[in-house]
Amino acid sequence: MPDHPTTLDELLTPEVIVRRDILNATIDRMERRLADAGVAHRPHIKTHKSADIALRQQQAGARGITTSSIGEAEVMADHGLKDILIAYPIIGERNRRRLVALAPRLHRLIVSINSLEALENVAAAAAEAGRVIELYLEIDVGIHRGELPPDERVLAVARRASDLASVRISGLQGYAGQCYAPASREARIAVAQEALKTLKSIRTLLAEAGIVVDTLSIGSSMEALMIEALPGATEVRAGNYVLGDRGILDVGEVTPAQCAQRVLTTVIAQQEPGYAILDAGSKTLTSDGAKHGEGHGHVVSMPDATITHLNEEHGFLRYDPSLHRLAIGDRLEIIPNHCCVVPNLKDRLVLCEGSDIVGEITVHARGVCY
Amino acid sequence: MPDHPTTLDELLTPEVIVRRDILNATIDRMERRLADAGVAHRPHIKTHKSADIALRQQQAGARGITTSSIGEAEVMADHGLKDILIAYPIIGERNRRRLVALAPRLHRLIVSINSLEALENVAAAAAEAGRVIELYLEIDVGIHRGELPPDERVLAVARRASDLASVRISGLQGYAGQCYAPASREARIAVAQEALKTLKSIRTLLAEAGIVVDTLSIGSSMEALMIEALPGATEVRAGNYVLGDRGILDVGEVTPAQCAQRVLTTVIAQQEPGYAILDAGSKTLTSDGAKHGEGHGHVVSMPDATITHLNEEHGFLRYDPSLHRLAIGDRLEIIPNHCCVVPNLKDRLVLCEGSDIVGEITVHARGVCY
Repeated sequence: MPDHPTTLDELLTPEVIVRRDILNATIDRMERRLADAGVAHRPHIKTHKSADIALRQQQAGARGITTSSIGEAEVMADHGLKDILIAYPIIGERNRRRLVALAPRLHRLIVSINSLEALENVAAAAAEAGRVIELYLEIDVGIHRGELPPDERVLAVARRASDLASVRISGLQGYAGQCYAPASREARIAVAQEALKTLKSIRTLLAEAGIVVDTLSIGSSMEALMIEALPGATEVRAGNYVLGDRGILDVGEVTPAQCAQRVLTTVIAQQEPGYAILDAGSKTLTSDGAKHGEGHGHVVSMPDATITHLNEEHGFLRYDPSLHRLAIGDRLEIIPNHCCVVPNLKDRLVLCEGSDIVGEITVHARGVCY
Repeated sequence: MPDHPTTLDELLTPEVIVRRDILNATIDRMERRLADAGVAHRPHIKTHKSADIALRQQQAGARGITTSSIGEAEVMADHGLKDILIAYPIIGERNRRRLVALAPRLHRLIVSINSLEALENVAAAAAEAGRVIELYLEIDVGIHRGELPPDERVLAVARRASDLASVRISGLQGYAGQCYAPASREARIAVAQEALKTLKSIRTLLAEAGIVVDTLSIGSSMEALMIEALPGATEVRAGNYVLGDRGILDVGEVTPAQCAQRVLTTVIAQQEPGYAILDAGSKTLTSDGAKHGEGHGHVVSMPDATITHLNEEHGFLRYDPSLHRLAIGDRLEIIPNHCCVVPNLKDRLVLCEGSDIVGEITVHARGVCY
């Protein structure tokens, strides 16, 4: 048995694998789709936390990237990414100083603002760094996670920003995570359109106050996958589309064959028909629930089976024994409920093509949340 | 601002901190309690995955340690732990070979067995390593995760093990995770007693077949915290007690002041009274739910508050604004729902005493699940 496995059969499990052909096709398809719609793409790298994939996305046409922390931005800058939106408020003196250090390393730096406190901190950092930092005003379009309220209260922050020489408002940012919830595409589109309408209304409000904003940046892969129905959005920050998960699978936006990331697992017990124990538990699949449907992942070869629950190193699988046979040692591929929390558990993802291992993807920002 | 923070105020958040005084007191208290009850302790290191803490547990009186994978055992052996129970079935040729390599590095190696397949694999490894490997027969005492059924079917595996020169059955192992569920201590004790009764009945069954087993090894910190009510158990494999979490907190087995591990988080938004957004989300607290009660952690300074849900980098906090005041930049300590999945996200935990940072705990086996 080789120390460096060359096929999936030789791989220790549980392990996170990425199918290279699917990954590349997914990246290219999304860039084509957004280009056709005339929308810029600034993919959110919190999904994969890997400069390898971020650079691939950029080469395929993405304008720059989005991160959810200064730390992720620092790591991406270390690996050659130079156009970064930090889509998270910068709070505290220590983070202000990190921003001062980061700014000169990038060709373009945009920071999201959700409060006057965050604004003042970024403006001070920009002044100290001796350059203008662009701002996106983060507008609450329905998920209520501390964004600026979508009304005239935005004006106070926008006016203050306009008075500061070291910052420049270049966009409005919304994240309509609630558009994953409806089961029908029509209803999801309606939710996303409503969120975009909110952004447009704030743009009008600002314009009436003499503050012109060009970029309307919308979030979520779901919105990216419905982009044709969202005219007026100028930028999208899609994250999880690139690895794929049940969040976009169960509603029919993609097929299992379009989900690149899978957890490879082994059957470790089989005491009764229709019930098996897998070696993938919450420390590999994570405990994130499904947005639609039950269970803890989509079993690729047994889509009708259910992983009913997880312990840390055990997955509890129920299946129809008249349709499937399993034995101890059998291996299965699982598409996780939520792909964005899985790479964060690993230093490397195993890159494969068919049953061959063809490389690895380094998760450069694993564990970086601050 | 120093590059190496010396106080919690200077720490970037979100971060996982461990209160040293609580950790040491907890370790010593558990060892005393189990020693007083005449029960050996083999703490499960999957909680902390750190040789630092494992060695401290051993110095305080623990017999050896328990791991949930060969990988964890390999890492612990690298750092001086020499008496290890691998409480997980060894499936597959590659794992067999790892066991061959590991065995000579330990003073004592015990492996759990849940099937004939696992038994044959371990026996082959032991024969190849040229030494006897001890076995615990894993018995289903209620959680149904692939253990041997608690009836005469155990005999087939036990008889086969007795025929093999390279292995020796030294114990029966049960894990009564279901004893966390009842809200009353009386009911929890009853569940744990029933599980122990099952182990005893299997010991009798084996004795009648001429197979003598000395060790009755029970699992879970909950059972350890009720050990006085479980006479006959000879060993316990407590895990999460050492860091503490809502699993043992909400039922009153410990107080918040006895939970060493906390997530330090910062308020990043506060748009309306009684509702704040924290920078700790599912990538720090994990998505593991509470066994009792709602929400995603116990806020130490606001025990009546609720973290209603999590995004990856956002915690949604609801609290009574007539009781508490919060502002952007304020910091809070959260005791997570489930401590065992939190260190696995970090290379290091920050060790503190009061508001001083006094060191760090390396999570040597972070990400090791195989």
